[in-house]
Amino acid sequence: MIITDAEREAVYKTIKWRRDVRSEFLPEEIPDEVIRRVLTAAHQAPSVGFMQPWNFILVRSRETRQRIKDDFAKAHAEAAERFPEGRREQYRSFKLEGIMEAPLGICVTCDRTRNGPVVIGRTAIPEMDLYSTVCAVQNLWLAARAENLGVGWVSIVHEPTLKDILGIPPHIVTIAYLCIGRVRVFHDAPELEKAGWLPRSDLSSLIFNERWEGERPC
Amino acid sequence: MIITDAEREAVYKTIKWRRDVRSEFLPEEIPDEVIRRVLTAAHQAPSVGFMQPWNFILVRSRETRQRIKDDFAKAHAEAAERFPEGRREQYRSFKLEGIMEAPLGICVTCDRTRNGPVVIGRTAIPEMDLYSTVCAVQNLWLAARAENLGVGWVSIVHEPTLKDILGIPPHIVTIAYLCIGRVRVFHDAPELEKAGWLPRSDLSSLIFNERWEGERPC
Repeated sequence: MIITDAEREAVYKTIKWRRDVRSEFLPEEIPDEVIRRVLTAAHQAPSVGFMQPWNFILVRSRETRQRIKDDFAKAHAEAAERFPEGRREQYRSFKLEGIMEAPLGICVTCDRTRNGPVVIGRTAIPEMDLYSTVCAVQNLWLAARAENLGVGWVSIVHEPTLKDILGIPPHIVTIAYLCIGRVRVFHDAPELEKAGWLPRSDLSSLIFNERWEGERPC
Repeated sequence: MIITDAEREAVYKTIKWRRDVRSEFLPEEIPDEVIRRVLTAAHQAPSVGFMQPWNFILVRSRETRQRIKDDFAKAHAEAAERFPEGRREQYRSFKLEGIMEAPLGICVTCDRTRNGPVVIGRTAIPEMDLYSTVCAVQNLWLAARAENLGVGWVSIVHEPTLKDILGIPPHIVTIAYLCIGRVRVFHDAPELEKAGWLPRSDLSSLIFNERWEGERPC
């Protein structure tokens, strides 16, 4: 199957305009068929040994989302204490999640016991099943962007609390809690870049030839 | 920026037709500008706290690739011993890498010390920087597919050996060793699915509402 030049440019446009959305969510419900298309794309991600270790928990309940938001608030306050004084106030000023504003949360999990115990390609690098699930997250994110939906990855939560809230058994790993919904606007650059927190790295400095060419610890 | 319906379909087509390529690589060199576009897409991946923890080591040397292939052979033989007897011969029959056939290898790494030590969004879930780097891998993979290039993720290698071969310092994590190149054909389904190793899971069975609805350990 050939991808045409126009299709290639569409993929690049979608990758370029994907954002981590926190502040711009609109409350409208997402049609079921759109959610289905986005999850189909996630399910088409590569998985080690064709393990397909993922599940998708769709969270619409306001009560459940409020509990996740409360845990975020705790984790966020703990995190602030770890930043040096000069950056702590700026850290606190960032809006870092849209749990209550987005109409839908999706928890993406990894069942490390699925289709195992021995899995093709996971024998030497046991993290491969976790990485496969992250590939599914990224497919979901790009598919959502192609649907003109915003996604935000909420990583400032305590995994044990999230598992408790969603009734997730101990042997399942939560990889991501995503907020998804329509947005007012997609920013033209990442918010932390626009705020001057960190600059975009120069790509050329990140590419090495044949061997590691970067700095080494003394 | 609006993504049109036609552009959305291009994204879905690319996601649907992405494959893990092992046997179909052609030896032609990839033009530098194509490699640059693919790596630009990788560099546009989401990263926790805008950390951009990745590097890309381009490996063209046949000698270097042969050393990686030799390590694959060792890891592959070790893995075969772990499969039950009924599946071991089938496992051995699969071609699981194209290290020497593809003209280019790309090792994608994660520098966990970059832009730290405290990173926005990595405070409660320390693996987030590794996951960001996997998002870059998936962007790279889809961009390559949009360029009609095949990618194969070689995970049957020993990370310490790979780091030694490529001169990667101890504090850097190797996330992926990818083979990339033109291909004879893209299969219409994953090879392990076609070989009957595992079936494609039914997506509906993987979607839960509000809470974990799957099996629980006794």
